Amino acid sequence: MRDVAIIGVSQTKFGELWDKSFRDLIVEAGITAIEDANVEGDELDAMYVGNMSAGLFVKQEHIASLIADHSGLAPIPCARVEAACASGGLALRNGIMAVASGYHDMVISAGVEKMTDVVDPTPAIATASDQEWEAQQGVTFPSLYAMMARRHMYEYGTTREQLAMVSVINHKNGAKNPLAQFPMEISVDAVLNSSIVADPLRLLDCSPVSDGAAAVILCPAEDAKKYTDTPIYVKASAQASGTIALHDRKNLTTIDSTVHASRNAYKMAGLEPKNIDLVEVHDCFSINGLLAVEDLGFVEKGKGGIAIEEGMTEIDGDIPVNPSGGLKARGHPLGATGIAQAAEIVWQLRGEAGKRQVDGAQTGMTHNIGGTGGTAAVHIFSN
Amino acid sequence: MRDVAIIGVSQTKFGELWDKSFRDLIVEAGITAIEDANVEGDELDAMYVGNMSAGLFVKQEHIASLIADHSGLAPIPCARVEAACASGGLALRNGIMAVASGYHDMVISAGVEKMTDVVDPTPAIATASDQEWEAQQGVTFPSLYAMMARRHMYEYGTTREQLAMVSVINHKNGAKNPLAQFPMEISVDAVLNSSIVADPLRLLDCSPVSDGAAAVILCPAEDAKKYTDTPIYVKASAQASGTIALHDRKNLTTIDSTVHASRNAYKMAGLEPKNIDLVEVHDCFSINGLLAVEDLGFVEKGKGGIAIEEGMTEIDGDIPVNPSGGLKARGHPLGATGIAQAAEIVWQLRGEAGKRQVDGAQTGMTHNIGGTGGTAAVHIFSN
Repeated sequence: MRDVAIIGVSQTKFGELWDKSFRDLIVEAGITAIEDANVEGDELDAMYVGNMSAGLFVKQEHIASLIADHSGLAPIPCARVEAACASGGLALRNGIMAVASGYHDMVISAGVEKMTDVVDPTPAIATASDQEWEAQQGVTFPSLYAMMARRHMYEYGTTREQLAMVSVINHKNGAKNPLAQFPMEISVDAVLNSSIVADPLRLLDCSPVSDGAAAVILCPAEDAKKYTDTPIYVKASAQASGTIALHDRKNLTTIDSTVHASRNAYKMAGLEPKNIDLVEVHDCFSINGLLAVEDLGFVEKGKGGIAIEEGMTEIDGDIPVNPSGGLKARGHPLGATGIAQAAEIVWQLRGEAGKRQVDGAQTGMTHNIGGTGGTAAVHIFSN
Repeated sequence: MRDVAIIGVSQTKFGELWDKSFRDLIVEAGITAIEDANVEGDELDAMYVGNMSAGLFVKQEHIASLIADHSGLAPIPCARVEAACASGGLALRNGIMAVASGYHDMVISAGVEKMTDVVDPTPAIATASDQEWEAQQGVTFPSLYAMMARRHMYEYGTTREQLAMVSVINHKNGAKNPLAQFPMEISVDAVLNSSIVADPLRLLDCSPVSDGAAAVILCPAEDAKKYTDTPIYVKASAQASGTIALHDRKNLTTIDSTVHASRNAYKMAGLEPKNIDLVEVHDCFSINGLLAVEDLGFVEKGKGGIAIEEGMTEIDGDIPVNPSGGLKARGHPLGATGIAQAAEIVWQLRGEAGKRQVDGAQTGMTHNIGGTGGTAAVHIFSN
């Protein structure tokens, strides 16, 4: 198995991008990543693209071929991989395997979602849950995560204010990220007084509906210095499945797939949680940002709320979480998120993260979730 | 890069399976493949599933997680890969890479589509073409392939009867396949007198709308004999992209992605067309069955019609094509087709194909197309 490095990254601005189409977004991300890697488009051997539901959002399947056509990448092999909101993480992982296996030498792994071309994105988003047992019964994603939040509050005494702090810290960081959808600070009071969505979750506990794309360029680690002075190395690429349906779980306060994927990632990298300098976690709802710091092993189960309240996850805390602003403030174009997380870690490990730079960051992690944890992808990178 | 072998295969009956759900079909295929491989479910390390559009057909994305949940495969990594009707071929290829890379030791690559739960599958199928430039303008897949057929007739003198022979031979073979959707023979007259769909293509030139699933079990070649006396070895796994939109092509009578993928496959395997004993080609429409024998290099461009008329592709011909019955007679549940093709080749190379057995088959090929050739996956196997 060959070691793999990242030599280029990109992210488009995330937001409600009315003036950019699906194909505009992915081509913009691709070209920017290629330029960042100092390579030519015809040096690419293969493409993987993460996308949850172009079929429902823009009535387009076969998007890998669309992209190959529109960007002139054909005849190289192009594939879409999908695992709901973890699609980007899987595009990254399959790109890594394609290089590790020796099948391909230079791969672009990208992610894209165009969510604002439909009147109501809720039915499309709901297809990440169990359609027959959850979505058809009227359950939405805010309500699924609300049940997890309520149970965590009941079992561990987690407070409403602690949940709000997840969003507050994300926005504090996101305010320093020019590519974020909502680059402004918010207060705990603002979260607590925002509209109720699914009790106890309010509007400012929820990540937004977003358009956007991101990309990374991968090559064998041994070749990386040919292209860049600052390659970032993939130390671990792990993925795990959980139950898609919430009622199939033993408990609601742990996401098993996060636990499995992260433990496999630590083992693969030969590292422990204490060795991670920063992490991009999947805070699609505030409760998921809180569960992540527990399930990834940064704090004991049940202690996430207190740790966040005490500043552990701030940029200058013990384990900086989501310096990018996370899904909440950077935005969450579903298939692009896992790749945008990796781009942020690369910028941080290169020391290029500007006002949101984590000092001395050398090892970073990404955590990307599909649905309520039916899929988790965890990656570890170092400079 | 590790060599890879197939140690187990399965296919459900293809057809309008009103009494079986999406999840029933994929679990049936999975269990049957696991039994065929003489392994236990908990020996599997990862799953890849090819599916074109569960989002539009059954309102379910995140199907890899759904399957992991419903079949008890969690926590192993499960991923959906999609490239329209070539999704199965890509699930196979990504499973092969996962084993070749050393990331996983035993992988199940499966494919599934449940197409008959919607009133009209046409809008979903059309998302395999360019939505903005083709589908939205009213172009359907029969009409796209009809243009290719008409042009081939114009340029090379291919006759209506020669096209009909593609379907006739498929049905002659499919009549001997108990898992086929339409296991009965048809005549040239029946094709020529069937309803017009898109001139010159008629109903019996077109593959049907189908439900079904198929699966293969992969492991490192060096371990294969632990599980079976008749492992089938993967000699090549290649994929290429073409333009998704027909108007972007230099000509309509060659599918470039088939040419690129097959040439890469021959090179990888160190073989030439003359070394292939049988092939499963992607005859979604009769013209595509004809283009395939030309673009895969079995006959010169333009000579496909005459070669088929003269019996080259019959089971006892120079290059037996689609002993299974192909997409036309076996059926075409989009995401399952690429895997079902591999299952047929495995049965043939094991000598287990019953009344449709190709005598002395030692090397077989599969050819799986997405859209009108936006994607092609070509695999070569030997015993």
